[in-house]
Amino acid sequence: MSDDSASPPPVRRSRPGRPEGRGNHREAVLDAAERTFAERGFAGASYREIAAEAAVTQAMITYYFGSKPDLFREVYLRRGRQLAGERMALLEALQAREAPFSVEDVVRAYLVPPFGLVTSTGGRAFLRLQARLHAEPDEMAFGLRREVYDAPVRAFVTVLAGLLPHLPADVLYRRFAQIIGIYLYILSDAHRISEISAGAAAMPATETMIAEIVAFTAAGLRAQSAA
Amino acid sequence: MSDDSASPPPVRRSRPGRPEGRGNHREAVLDAAERTFAERGFAGASYREIAAEAAVTQAMITYYFGSKPDLFREVYLRRGRQLAGERMALLEALQAREAPFSVEDVVRAYLVPPFGLVTSTGGRAFLRLQARLHAEPDEMAFGLRREVYDAPVRAFVTVLAGLLPHLPADVLYRRFAQIIGIYLYILSDAHRISEISAGAAAMPATETMIAEIVAFTAAGLRAQSAA
Repeated sequence: MSDDSASPPPVRRSRPGRPEGRGNHREAVLDAAERTFAERGFAGASYREIAAEAAVTQAMITYYFGSKPDLFREVYLRRGRQLAGERMALLEALQAREAPFSVEDVVRAYLVPPFGLVTSTGGRAFLRLQARLHAEPDEMAFGLRREVYDAPVRAFVTVLAGLLPHLPADVLYRRFAQIIGIYLYILSDAHRISEISAGAAAMPATETMIAEIVAFTAAGLRAQSAA
Repeated sequence: MSDDSASPPPVRRSRPGRPEGRGNHREAVLDAAERTFAERGFAGASYREIAAEAAVTQAMITYYFGSKPDLFREVYLRRGRQLAGERMALLEALQAREAPFSVEDVVRAYLVPPFGLVTSTGGRAFLRLQARLHAEPDEMAFGLRREVYDAPVRAFVTVLAGLLPHLPADVLYRRFAQIIGIYLYILSDAHRISEISAGAAAMPATETMIAEIVAFTAAGLRAQSAA
């Protein structure tokens, strides 16, 4: 599966160069791989299963994506880059507007894109894949997370620093890390809220949950530094 | 491996009933299993490897623990119950003392025990195993978490409710879930803080990190409800 020089799959071979329908096949493979990696993890997912899910040949997956780490990387980056782009667009929109913006606005701009993933099957598969990253080989998981998340985090922290000049940079970064921990946990584990409360609380509508995290974390961000 | 009626292992067979040194062997197997499950996950861990690590026979593991799910359960509950016990003891000590206690005191009582796990090899293995739980079969992971964490969470939320009477119970539970998300993330992913900040911040000494989480979350808990 790591043979980058594999010849193109037999289907559509009559046309040299880029096969017809490449975009559709690529997306179908990425969708199927996203579901399969989310379900079985990196090690447990096989090209056989992904090929069957996507209704393509295993050779076609190898042709388009190469080895399994390469495929995983494409799956992760496809949605990760979209997430990063949405976050940056919302942050830039805040900075571009005439009205002043608040700590709450900035946190909301960070949270809205990942919560949007809940509404689609593929988005939910990505969230599960993301929650499983801890169990994947570190050298793979760490690099991908850095590539997707670190630049937006720095941009958001820089904007927050302007609103919270009383906080040293290291404290602000550690507060931002707490926001990341919150949303990853809430998104990966929605039903824990009703479990821990024995049904006294539940995961509310997405907008309400975002508003509650914004209220909690904005107050936390404004707190005096404990240091 | 799921044969509960397996005969005792050949070693120390001269003594009927409980083998000599049972406590030591049990603990050695649990320690080795904790490391192996943390490293390889439930599916990837084998009795062969655990037996070699613990310097016992595979038959002895089966004799003491039965099937692999049973062993995983014992590994998880050993440290999970200790954590729950420490939390409850700290909470009860707060309630028993003469001086009034604050939201900060309650949050600290919840956080100190898991941060204590960082100081031992076995504790760190448990934290990694815990972080991997998302990748384990739901029916196993969910039941174990419920058994270990839910009763303490309810006790802590009940005490917090007395200090924060302005908050509806469901909001308070969702705020507490955010605290859980924070500490699980910070403990499982300490180096992310220096990654996201490009070295501008790092995981500080345990006491400082606890103080920072307490300051952040106590302010969050006191915030007006967004609902």
